[in-house]
Amino acid sequence: MTKALKSFASDNNAPVHKAVLGAMMEVNQGDVIGYGDDVYSLEAEQTLKELFGKDVKIYFMLTGTGANVAALSHITRPYHAIVCSDKAHLEKDECGAPEKHTGCKLHHIASDDGKIYPDQVAPYLKSVGFPHHAQPKVISITQATEMGAVYQPEEIKALAHFAHEHDLYLHMDGARIANAAACLDTSLVEMTRFSGVDILSFGATKNGAMAAEAVVFFNRELARDFEYTRKQSMQLMSKMRYVSAQFQALHSGNLWLENARQANAMAKLLADRVSDIPGVRITQKVATNAVFAILPPTAIEKLQRRYFFYIWDAAKHEVRWMTAFNTTEQDIEQFVSAIRDAVDSP
Amino acid sequence: MTKALKSFASDNNAPVHKAVLGAMMEVNQGDVIGYGDDVYSLEAEQTLKELFGKDVKIYFMLTGTGANVAALSHITRPYHAIVCSDKAHLEKDECGAPEKHTGCKLHHIASDDGKIYPDQVAPYLKSVGFPHHAQPKVISITQATEMGAVYQPEEIKALAHFAHEHDLYLHMDGARIANAAACLDTSLVEMTRFSGVDILSFGATKNGAMAAEAVVFFNRELARDFEYTRKQSMQLMSKMRYVSAQFQALHSGNLWLENARQANAMAKLLADRVSDIPGVRITQKVATNAVFAILPPTAIEKLQRRYFFYIWDAAKHEVRWMTAFNTTEQDIEQFVSAIRDAVDSP
Amino acid sequence: MTKALKSFASDNNAPVHKAVLGAMMEVNQGDVIGYGDDVYSLEAEQTLKELFGKDVKIYFMLTGTGANVAALSHITRPYHAIVCSDKAHLEKDECGAPEKHTGCKLHHIASDDGKIYPDQVAPYLKSVGFPHHAQPKVISITQATEMGAVYQPEEIKALAHFAHEHDLYLHMDGARIANAAACLDTSLVEMTRFSGVDILSFGATKNGAMAAEAVVFFNRELARDFEYTRKQSMQLMSKMRYVSAQFQALHSGNLWLENARQANAMAKLLADRVSDIPGVRITQKVATNAVFAILPPTAIEKLQRRYFFYIWDAAKHEVRWMTAFNTTEQDIEQFVSAIRDAVDSP
Amino acid sequence: MTKALKSFASDNNAPVHKAVLGAMMEVNQGDVIGYGDDVYSLEAEQTLKELFGKDVKIYFMLTGTGANVAALSHITRPYHAIVCSDKAHLEKDECGAPEKHTGCKLHHIASDDGKIYPDQVAPYLKSVGFPHHAQPKVISITQATEMGAVYQPEEIKALAHFAHEHDLYLHMDGARIANAAACLDTSLVEMTRFSGVDILSFGATKNGAMAAEAVVFFNRELARDFEYTRKQSMQLMSKMRYVSAQFQALHSGNLWLENARQANAMAKLLADRVSDIPGVRITQKVATNAVFAILPPTAIEKLQRRYFFYIWDAAKHEVRWMTAFNTTEQDIEQFVSAIRDAVDSP
Repeated sequence: MTKALKSFASDNNAPVHKAVLGAMMEVNQGDVIGYGDDVYSLEAEQTLKELFGKDVKIYFMLTGTGANVAALSHITRPYHAIVCSDKAHLEKDECGAPEKHTGCKLHHIASDDGKIYPDQVAPYLKSVGFPHHAQPKVISITQATEMGAVYQPEEIKALAHFAHEHDLYLHMDGARIANAAACLDTSLVEMTRFSGVDILSFGATKNGAMAAEAVVFFNRELARDFEYTRKQSMQLMSKMRYVSAQFQALHSGNLWLENARQANAMAKLLADRVSDIPGVRITQKVATNAVFAILPPTAIEKLQRRYFFYIWDAAKHEVRWMTAFNTTEQDIEQFVSAIRDAVDSP
Repeated sequence: MTKALKSFASDNNAPVHKAVLGAMMEVNQGDVIGYGDDVYSLEAEQTLKELFGKDVKIYFMLTGTGANVAALSHITRPYHAIVCSDKAHLEKDECGAPEKHTGCKLHHIASDDGKIYPDQVAPYLKSVGFPHHAQPKVISITQATEMGAVYQPEEIKALAHFAHEHDLYLHMDGARIANAAACLDTSLVEMTRFSGVDILSFGATKNGAMAAEAVVFFNRELARDFEYTRKQSMQLMSKMRYVSAQFQALHSGNLWLENARQANAMAKLLADRVSDIPGVRITQKVATNAVFAILPPTAIEKLQRRYFFYIWDAAKHEVRWMTAFNTTEQDIEQFVSAIRDAVDSP
Repeated sequence: MTKALKSFASDNNAPVHKAVLGAMMEVNQGDVIGYGDDVYSLEAEQTLKELFGKDVKIYFMLTGTGANVAALSHITRPYHAIVCSDKAHLEKDECGAPEKHTGCKLHHIASDDGKIYPDQVAPYLKSVGFPHHAQPKVISITQATEMGAVYQPEEIKALAHFAHEHDLYLHMDGARIANAAACLDTSLVEMTRFSGVDILSFGATKNGAMAAEAVVFFNRELARDFEYTRKQSMQLMSKMRYVSAQFQALHSGNLWLENARQANAMAKLLADRVSDIPGVRITQKVATNAVFAILPPTAIEKLQRRYFFYIWDAAKHEVRWMTAFNTTEQDIEQFVSAIRDAVDSP
Repeated sequence: MTKALKSFASDNNAPVHKAVLGAMMEVNQGDVIGYGDDVYSLEAEQTLKELFGKDVKIYFMLTGTGANVAALSHITRPYHAIVCSDKAHLEKDECGAPEKHTGCKLHHIASDDGKIYPDQVAPYLKSVGFPHHAQPKVISITQATEMGAVYQPEEIKALAHFAHEHDLYLHMDGARIANAAACLDTSLVEMTRFSGVDILSFGATKNGAMAAEAVVFFNRELARDFEYTRKQSMQLMSKMRYVSAQFQALHSGNLWLENARQANAMAKLLADRVSDIPGVRITQKVATNAVFAILPPTAIEKLQRRYFFYIWDAAKHEVRWMTAFNTTEQDIEQFVSAIRDAVDSP
């Protein structure tokens, strides 16, 4: 465990963007009231309202799991079911927190790239009205998905239309929504509110922040009493200004987009540069900042001595490489060179 | 809501100590693995182990409520009861999070200063073995209490002895444990491990940090599997180094103690300086950084125009004033002068 | 543990009334659809609707704790608080099931006879709107109380008025509602719907049934989706006709009232007959079927060798004696004689 | 909804066996202590201990969902995962009660006949030790399965061996365990304790009882404190003797086995008799008391006018027919004749 290694394990292995940390230092003066009723938090809230619309409801949170779980527990009752992909962070990577805190059943749809579609949700509606079955109430999608794929706005609209037609809500886990926006070259509001999303887990941590997430309600009726759910979900930070400052730094200008573009571009570069290495096969379309690849097993082992990254599917020798806002072309070139070495060496 | 006001509302209205923020900047370079397996986090863990003993188990958390709730849910089953004071943060100020997440019943003991004693816990043991009653399993105390009072180590030992004799655990909410240590002029380990505490919610946020809490297990058997409870409690930060750096800054030297001493000294000064103002009556012994006082109602109103603070008991015109590491003598003098003005004016 | 003893321990120590068991035998023929969609269940539902009004919503349940907990969990969110008396079954005798299943905090009001009043609930409303505090949402009262006391309809109306004025619901635990009706000589609907109760746990078990409870919604909007809560609360019986038959037997005629009157009369008789025994002191007004009395400690011990009953408060040598539909005058005379013996003997 | 129809919808559409109701009448005399400390309950417990071994721990319950959920919640923590088949009652038919009450994630394995095997559980063990994933702790199997299939004792042993090797428990949902025993012509203890099952949901309701289930702990350490879990799970009946009498009636002699044999034989007969009807295809092996069949859609519609039964898979025109202890050869002949009519008519 040394500091020296470059990590391709996750975009949360990156540090905090300098401007974000700078903004946190700037608010570090004097006393302000806690829990979000301070000027910095109100400013940051305003900034996000300019992105999403004046009438949305915004609540700052501390962790991505916290944002997902608090959002979903607030819009469900325990006898409801939540439909998501089998790759969803919700389903796979939150240690059962959604079940524990919402009480709901999770239905997961098998998906290669993490995207799901209305016709895959439809079969779960057979349970509606049958008291022995959990009642579907939310479709939760991830934008960009855990596999790096991106929903087109039309696909989101189709899901929203389907959801609302059947009295369901559409939740979006936007831990990497910036990367999706950069990929689609569209605005955050287009992919969310304008596409019919009811409630968004809005991530900043993976986009260059330290620990800053938000729950954004486009369906404002759903927001009623959310301040209690946030507090009870242990996600209400006392010194809130330091979360707010992170959002302000990223979203008062274009930093969020630049960060996402850089991460995406580096993933694309990486995928391009390894595409002709014998024995390396890219397994997912590279739309955002993740590259999935199959490597010779011995190469994986060698490479992991020099770089952090996760083995995605051991049986298939598939690995995941993620880039972040701080990944440079030089990082990629060195990594590619290491991959070549690892693959070449006997 | 302006930035200019000095706040006596809470020690969480204070900013972050410069050295803490400095330490966070220092770790802000390059990639490190997430979720606590980085060198900075291991260092900080070592630092705390030097305080508490090599063999304790330490888990960093994000919020005080999160630390309390995760700790208590881990050492209880839902049919258990937790006994605490009626002033406990747990009982009063966590929006029912303990009940929601542990499933346990909370028994609260009426207390003026927030301290409880074995003979007050004893009556709840009548329920032991009776399946219609929740089964007492944890005594939770707060050091220093929400009323600013401090348990003597002997008092903690008596509670621990009583608890262990009856197969209960002793939990300490140490959101302001630094203030208690400063008051008692004793070490953190003396008041906790050496006094028989099984599990500690160890707070740094109110001691000059940004958002840094930890759960410390002195009873190491209880720690088994806590990594899952932490994650499921939505308290596992991905970029953990920034929490760790806060602990490192406060506890690798004496900063934590200096901060606490300053806060305590300023509370003492405030209490002394208002003691002769007619119409002002101090209602709790000032042991740490809280001053409770009764004021003429019109004075409260006037004073609140210039300073943030909470009305503690409206019926009794009782207010709470809290100091923090950043409170200065000048702050106190100006505040005292404002109190005099408010009381004097017709 | 022999069969021979007469029990004054609880009205649930009584057997099932012959007519109730007879009704269960009568429905015991042929197949019917399960889970309540059978003719017997529809009939019983009709019978109860004649008591409470055609438009109420009625759901049969299996246990009193199940009825209380399912009812309360359905009309609350986990960040709510439920206000009840410190004698409430909910608070004392359900092993923390309300906290576990609703997630809510319970606020209990100290009460000698188990009755609570609006001015005692009022202080809890200070928490409204403060995100750190659980939000009061339900007042739960027990009719008759666990101490045998009875609310006058006007007292219930006052609580309902207060509740609705403050956006709270009024829940009634009616485990012994028949005894209350018999005492007040009023109808069940008068004490519930006409007095503003929103939701009732309607008990039959203690009134001569085997295991039959119901949740009755007077506020019909609250009933939406309750079929899922009942199922998820593990209270949906498959062979429902046998629960329905119990209600039908008790409520298609006056059996419920006769049973309650007999139990009440026997408690009154018992209280009268012991009132002049030296050393015996009745400690609660005897309005329904419970008698609380202080006895010399040696007398308690002797008496318990011949009869089942509970010591209510060991420190005060206070016992509880309950009568039931099957208690006879002869039972009382023999018991009184045993009490005399126990008190007299050296 | 008339009383006249014969139902093939479920074995819980059957009435209560006369001898069971008779036993309930017999215990209906005089007072006995509640909640299971009465002679009848102790007798019934003894009876079951003769089946399963003197040292097992037995707790009577009210519903099958209640038995499953209380059992599983008692042996898990919320960060655990439970592995079962996708046909499991637990997964499909309990309205999310397992998730709500245990907090655990359910992993379901796709299965045609409801049986699962160690190699299908193995992949879930990859999560062990990874704090982002729920930790597998229980394998839950149903004997007989919801599809009417039966595990051989060797298959159960293999699952138990696998479970214990990996620090998991083996739970059996025995709602229809009597049918499985009848099919295998083996004892209840052979299929459970002797095959390594740790904890059993022992069903009587579908075997001719009214509402009688039990949780049986073969692994006695797991039973510690279960009396509190039962009470908190709202499954503790006050007038327990009436549940106990049901078990006594079924298990003090061979009634349980006769009932199961009759149900199984009638399913076999039904399957045989329809096997040559054109357009009718049996889709599952008939081992116990369920027959799954594909029929022409118009035939289904016609048949449902005269008989209750469920459409299992609408898309495939697959229905489920269940027999019970009270199904007679005449019932089968009439039903078969109705099936012929329905299939034949244009």
